[in-house]
Amino acid sequence: GGRPTISSEDGMYAMSIGLAFHEDIGGFMGMSPRRGETRGDFSSLTENARRLRIPISFRYKDWIANITPDFGNGSADGSTTLYEANVNYAGFHNTILTAGYFQPRVTEEDSESSNEFEMMERPAITDIVRNIAAGDARMSIGGLHYDKRWWIAGYLTGQSYGARNGTGVTDSQTGATFRVAGRPYMSKDIDVHVGLSAISAFKVAEKSNGRSYAFAEGPEVNLTTTKFLNQTVGNVGSIWSAGPELGFRWKRLVLKGEYYHIGVTRGDNTGGNVGNQQSVNFSGYYGAANYTLFGKGRSYNIKEGAFAAPGVDHVFDPLHGYWGALELSARYSVADLNSGLNTAGAVRGGQQTVWSAGLNWYPNRHFRFMLDFNHIIVSRNSQLYDLVGRDGNSVAGRIQAAF
Amino acid sequence: GGRPTISSEDGMYAMSIGLAFHEDIGGFMGMSPRRGETRGDFSSLTENARRLRIPISFRYKDWIANITPDFGNGSADGSTTLYEANVNYAGFHNTILTAGYFQPRVTEEDSESSNEFEMMERPAITDIVRNIAAGDARMSIGGLHYDKRWWIAGYLTGQSYGARNGTGVTDSQTGATFRVAGRPYMSKDIDVHVGLSAISAFKVAEKSNGRSYAFAEGPEVNLTTTKFLNQTVGNVGSIWSAGPELGFRWKRLVLKGEYYHIGVTRGDNTGGNVGNQQSVNFSGYYGAANYTLFGKGRSYNIKEGAFAAPGVDHVFDPLHGYWGALELSARYSVADLNSGLNTAGAVRGGQQTVWSAGLNWYPNRHFRFMLDFNHIIVSRNSQLYDLVGRDGNSVAGRIQAAF
Amino acid sequence: GGRPTISSEDGMYAMSIGLAFHEDIGGFMGMSPRRGETRGDFSSLTENARRLRIPISFRYKDWIANITPDFGNGSADGSTTLYEANVNYAGFHNTILTAGYFQPRVTEEDSESSNEFEMMERPAITDIVRNIAAGDARMSIGGLHYDKRWWIAGYLTGQSYGARNGTGVTDSQTGATFRVAGRPYMSKDIDVHVGLSAISAFKVAEKSNGRSYAFAEGPEVNLTTTKFLNQTVGNVGSIWSAGPELGFRWKRLVLKGEYYHIGVTRGDNTGGNVGNQQSVNFSGYYGAANYTLFGKGRSYNIKEGAFAAPGVDHVFDPLHGYWGALELSARYSVADLNSGLNTAGAVRGGQQTVWSAGLNWYPNRHFRFMLDFNHIIVSRNSQLYDLVGRDGNSVAGRIQAAF
Repeated sequence: GGRPTISSEDGMYAMSIGLAFHEDIGGFMGMSPRRGETRGDFSSLTENARRLRIPISFRYKDWIANITPDFGNGSADGSTTLYEANVNYAGFHNTILTAGYFQPRVTEEDSESSNEFEMMERPAITDIVRNIAAGDARMSIGGLHYDKRWWIAGYLTGQSYGARNGTGVTDSQTGATFRVAGRPYMSKDIDVHVGLSAISAFKVAEKSNGRSYAFAEGPEVNLTTTKFLNQTVGNVGSIWSAGPELGFRWKRLVLKGEYYHIGVTRGDNTGGNVGNQQSVNFSGYYGAANYTLFGKGRSYNIKEGAFAAPGVDHVFDPLHGYWGALELSARYSVADLNSGLNTAGAVRGGQQTVWSAGLNWYPNRHFRFMLDFNHIIVSRNSQLYDLVGRDGNSVAGRIQAAF
Repeated sequence: GGRPTISSEDGMYAMSIGLAFHEDIGGFMGMSPRRGETRGDFSSLTENARRLRIPISFRYKDWIANITPDFGNGSADGSTTLYEANVNYAGFHNTILTAGYFQPRVTEEDSESSNEFEMMERPAITDIVRNIAAGDARMSIGGLHYDKRWWIAGYLTGQSYGARNGTGVTDSQTGATFRVAGRPYMSKDIDVHVGLSAISAFKVAEKSNGRSYAFAEGPEVNLTTTKFLNQTVGNVGSIWSAGPELGFRWKRLVLKGEYYHIGVTRGDNTGGNVGNQQSVNFSGYYGAANYTLFGKGRSYNIKEGAFAAPGVDHVFDPLHGYWGALELSARYSVADLNSGLNTAGAVRGGQQTVWSAGLNWYPNRHFRFMLDFNHIIVSRNSQLYDLVGRDGNSVAGRIQAAF
Repeated sequence: GGRPTISSEDGMYAMSIGLAFHEDIGGFMGMSPRRGETRGDFSSLTENARRLRIPISFRYKDWIANITPDFGNGSADGSTTLYEANVNYAGFHNTILTAGYFQPRVTEEDSESSNEFEMMERPAITDIVRNIAAGDARMSIGGLHYDKRWWIAGYLTGQSYGARNGTGVTDSQTGATFRVAGRPYMSKDIDVHVGLSAISAFKVAEKSNGRSYAFAEGPEVNLTTTKFLNQTVGNVGSIWSAGPELGFRWKRLVLKGEYYHIGVTRGDNTGGNVGNQQSVNFSGYYGAANYTLFGKGRSYNIKEGAFAAPGVDHVFDPLHGYWGALELSARYSVADLNSGLNTAGAVRGGQQTVWSAGLNWYPNRHFRFMLDFNHIIVSRNSQLYDLVGRDGNSVAGRIQAAF
């Protein structure tokens, strides 16, 4: 796959070093605050090292240890973290058993490699769902199995890397993830993908003020630290989410859609105010279309149970008429963090809708340039920067290298 | 040794990349605070990336530069630091001269590689002693020499990596370490180890409130940020510690014990209160027993002047009846930070006793799984979480990979 | 060049890992504060990991991705950052096009590799100028071209890595750099270097209190966090700087000098106080002399348009009378952050003069030991540690390894 690797002559040992390099440049237009609102962090032109991961892998026979430092960041670069650090046993056929900090995959979007995304960012609902008990560098113990027609995985999960560091946590989270996906129909021109993902935090982390959970998500472009969706739910018993995945490929066209419901049961803090006693229900969905204009179209990756990026037949070489690969994407995405609005236990997290369109150019198999336009519509959510809702647009590009 | 290495054909150059991967999962039981005490950070189930080190080494002829980033942490992961970054000259026989950030070894326990520890953590007294002027990423200039029967090392030491960063230090620490060890008797079945370690901070770091030093140590399981032993000594002139090392191997059985005394002389701040004028004396000791149930028993490592982990004769392969190696450990450890309790200069740092037992399984030479049980007994030390003492237990496991 | 590299057999792929290891040990003498001043951070003996960079490079045909973590620091080690992370196209002759976090070079001093500096640190004015819109890990898009006799480069630049992280920036900086240099005369014994560097921040970062810029610089030895030069200019419209570079080599002697003027235009905050309305003008210059006592003298590096370190003819081997290379340097440097002192818009940033002398020893081409003496003279700048000016000295050594 082009990742630099050194091996021992007897094949017992292998070590590889890779790279996932995503740097974003762009800005926001028309994000003006309304009367009484705070401006928020919306540069007209700024930059972010979105992912700067150096995956390092050590193999001895069927045992593998992975560690991946990450010098990039979700919204404002400058800190160093870990993408993963885990130990794996790959001695069973098409099966990987894993223990350690890992990204256990839930939802179709989260199952794709970020190097192969259709748009620069996942739909908001996908990020909100996966962050409940999965996401990057989540302590996990479990396994996955794949075959030509189906894919299944389950993990028990704990804290995310760093969750106890300076946060005042006195009891850590425990949870689990589950995903099953299949291809009921496949042919040269057609792939039908169906799947089901589920996730739960049985017990969220406890701090001095009890067990609460913050749902928060940016506007599907990670050049701002302001999150329009930002809702802390107090007195949490457990959180769960589940929903279906659907995908369809016809030649160079890929259509995808997912829907997720999120439920929060309340804890036993019955002495609290009535607003903290009622179950909370959030939801979200997205639909996406992608078409490969030239190059080899998107294909189905059985190891991920998800669609993979276009291929480059001929490396960029304009003198000989080779232009690599180019694809076009469009997406409609909704995430709704309002619950029981007309009841005493109303949770007013707001609703965010994002229309997006994007263009991805692959000069060769290791480099990619992305350009995304987002139109962002947020309804009121009682945050200072969003008292009465906010509309606006973003244009952002990404420079990507992957080895 | 299985570390991936690339070399130039003429042998003048070599570069290697390794891994020390230790991830801990576990929790505490029965750590309930007594009346008026704070709970402390004692999860029933939590995780910590204890060590995630990537040792990178560059050699040109007899000169070696080492740098080892560490994504793990003493008690709560999430930050990135440095384990070492030093330059070495290895041109003299069995001798390594070192300058830079380094772990200068004192005590038998500290001289063992953390990949080969009997228990998950060092005894508390060992950590307290080594932190005075040694420990990880301590600026050091000095050297070590070893032979078949003896080992000697001495270093002048300065600050630890990061000690001036945001801490308000206006004058840095200077100190030194010394260790000599030998094997007066050795045979196929028996190794007798004796040694002497000494360490001193001639001058501790100065801040705006003068020169003070904080002695602090956790309960020999690093899944909590709460340290029962936590005593700052003010108006410090210098700190020293010294003590004997004893070890004995008979076939697959290894017995070890060490005792250390710590003395603090006071500075010239004679105008301060009487509690800051009197010399301070702390001490601690431990005794440990280890037995290798199957696999090759522990052996003596002359390069470290210390005992090394069991060997695996046959890689884990249950179909053929091979189970790797398994060892059993037990330890009794006391660290006493009380000094002059019945005097005007009483220092009430408390006393911590830990009974521990552990099991280590090695499926092959690069991977290890540990399971430790600790019973922790702490006498009162006037900290909020320990006004009248605290007893409790921990169970913790470690996933380890080492290349 | 001695950097460990692995390549594919067809030459299409290459990956390399290098090292830039600079650790400093030293202290200050005679830095006593005058009446009413604060002491500042001036240890008599302390240490700093100045640069601990691990450059990792991935090449696929003419496309290169670089990423370089840095575990060192400008003044107090302990944090991890990024030196660079960029994507390059090298398909045109003697030309490198770059996008991403990069060090776009301005001034002759900044164009030299830090592994090859004459003194441990750049002159203060060079650092002040480059930090306006260049410096380490600056988001850049542009290119450089070099030939035997000339060198030219220009970049559009944005924020530095981490500039939006926890700083309250709501609109990021945009700027640009330009440098052209040439060798009008060259022979075996003589190189004449002339150049022109220019830099501008068209728009500095905006925070809640508007657009301001902090000029700050240490005393040309990075073992203190105290910066005598430390002046924030408010209500900034744009900042520019430009100046000439001159260099001359005669056999083993290299003479260099540069002068830079810095201008700050004010923004449209006309309602502010009069002190924030007037243009600000700073300046600085330095002159340096360097002589190689033994070993191969400094040479001209056409890829950098700057002078390079001495070469080692024979590796250090005292038994055979080989001592590597040794050079002697001296420098006089002035940075003046006072502007319009007798006007209503006076900016009192102070003036710092540093006389320095240094010795560099190269036992072989990969290792270097430096020893620098600085005499520091600072005129009053209204900072608490510098109300009436301060004189003092520093002695510092550096341990260096470069692969």
